[in-house]
Amino acid sequence: MGNDSGPVILLTAALDEEQRARLLDAAPGARILSEQDLAAHPDLVGRIEVAYPRLPSALWARAAGLRWLQTSFAGVDGLLANPEARRHPAVLTNVHIHVNCLAEHLWGMALMLVRNLHGSVRVQQSGHWDTQAVTGGVGTLAGGTLCVAGLGAIGAQCAAMGRLMGMRVIGINRSGKPHPSVDQMVTPDKRREVFAVSSLVMLLLPGTEETRGFAGKAELEALHGAWLVNGGRGTAVDTNELVRALEDGRVRGAGLDVTDPEPLPDGHPLWALPNVVISPHYGGVHPGYEEEALEVFRGNLRRWVRGEPLQNVVDKSKGY
Amino acid sequence: MGNDSGPVILLTAALDEEQRARLLDAAPGARILSEQDLAAHPDLVGRIEVAYPRLPSALWARAAGLRWLQTSFAGVDGLLANPEARRHPAVLTNVHIHVNCLAEHLWGMALMLVRNLHGSVRVQQSGHWDTQAVTGGVGTLAGGTLCVAGLGAIGAQCAAMGRLMGMRVIGINRSGKPHPSVDQMVTPDKRREVFAVSSLVMLLLPGTEETRGFAGKAELEALHGAWLVNGGRGTAVDTNELVRALEDGRVRGAGLDVTDPEPLPDGHPLWALPNVVISPHYGGVHPGYEEEALEVFRGNLRRWVRGEPLQNVVDKSKGY
Repeated sequence: MGNDSGPVILLTAALDEEQRARLLDAAPGARILSEQDLAAHPDLVGRIEVAYPRLPSALWARAAGLRWLQTSFAGVDGLLANPEARRHPAVLTNVHIHVNCLAEHLWGMALMLVRNLHGSVRVQQSGHWDTQAVTGGVGTLAGGTLCVAGLGAIGAQCAAMGRLMGMRVIGINRSGKPHPSVDQMVTPDKRREVFAVSSLVMLLLPGTEETRGFAGKAELEALHGAWLVNGGRGTAVDTNELVRALEDGRVRGAGLDVTDPEPLPDGHPLWALPNVVISPHYGGVHPGYEEEALEVFRGNLRRWVRGEPLQNVVDKSKGY
Repeated sequence: MGNDSGPVILLTAALDEEQRARLLDAAPGARILSEQDLAAHPDLVGRIEVAYPRLPSALWARAAGLRWLQTSFAGVDGLLANPEARRHPAVLTNVHIHVNCLAEHLWGMALMLVRNLHGSVRVQQSGHWDTQAVTGGVGTLAGGTLCVAGLGAIGAQCAAMGRLMGMRVIGINRSGKPHPSVDQMVTPDKRREVFAVSSLVMLLLPGTEETRGFAGKAELEALHGAWLVNGGRGTAVDTNELVRALEDGRVRGAGLDVTDPEPLPDGHPLWALPNVVISPHYGGVHPGYEEEALEVFRGNLRRWVRGEPLQNVVDKSKGY
């Protein structure tokens, strides 16, 4: 433990020798600990300086030496729900390797709903060609209005895709400042007016107290047969009100990668609504994900040992 | 019948008074006939100068005065399969009002397959949150290669969307000339080489003798786990070979708006393959379609009575 030439790193992911070697190349002299090491030597917890991709929740109170946690995910709301983690002074960094993948996922959901492809999947099970059975509810988005709430990298990509498809795009974020991927940007207090003119609403909001109930009763009542896709956090939508809006057609269809509660309980009415598609929180999952996350950590680790600023630092006061 | 001031138009679509008035505004003095009129007065067939949106197939041999048929659809292969229609000298025009809609549809299919959203629709029926059950086969397109075969307006829009999603796009058309929406354009004889490097193949080919079997045994064998979407004509793909390629994974998933034969017969193996989504030829259907087609006809009708060139003239020798 007397090695002062590199940081003590807790690795809670299973890495192979080659991957560990790459980390040591970025941080020569680092000592890498596993959870097994901690179990065998509990006193080592206080020596941890860096952790990746998680710190077991019970360790936060004892990890007095932790200075930096690099996650392998984007949304830190779950992590910050732990009071010990929230008040811990360690720097928190996340990854933004979901951008393309999540934009593909959310647009897949939106277009599937608009073109009733979920209906086609169900009708296909009958093994019979029946165009009439599936064309009743089809629509098109070109010429319509897209509302994108949350203009991070994913929201910006989703907005650009909407524009290419011939939609007018209205963005919603806290600043309300113009953004190159949207035609108009407004602040969250204007969301009802935006919802009222939207044919498609895409929610990409982080899970914070401020975004809770972003699409509540009043907002969902402002919709007129719009499609809704949620790829941020389930808490942005009032689930009971969403069910009502789906039943009466104010929401024409919903694509939900996230729900509230999550996981959605067995027997919840959302499961059986014909105009709902639920993808159980895998919008960011893609081949190579773990490797890409490791590369983000490795880049930051190199900066860490050199004393350079880290990338993807989370503002804990904002929650993202 | 003595009205020489306007053309005799056979209308086989049910139009309301306002729509008929709009046509007469474009062609003052025109005489509009219905199929009922022809049934009552069979001799009127020879007087038809213009028809919209179809000429009943039995009438082609007798419609000696027909000079122009405006269709309300894009693919004229079915129409030209009638020898009497093919050899008739009348000008044939079609509509291109499917572009945005079909691009949305085909990208909806592609992204649904890539993100296993069709799997989510099926698993959702169990009413149970099970991420593991649906994430096994998910992928991402960013960084991959898109092959677009057929670079008309729809193909160009599909190509542009692929580029925005971070794909390299290779187009295939008869000329092989550079196109602003693709990174590289090749001629059809190079298609096997292109298939070999593609992660997604989009087929948007018209139904001609030349495009029949475009994706046959040799081409499908060149694929390495690519997704395939067909929005042109079913005959471009060898269906039996496609089934084999889907079974052994050379085609990772297929989205078929068109099939061969079409309609796909009950009990055909394609219906039950888990990696296939069939939308029974409604990729172009959208609200307002009939009205948009009528407006195309009206614009051409105005040109017709003024002796101006028509828009969307089909090259019958090419078949599109």
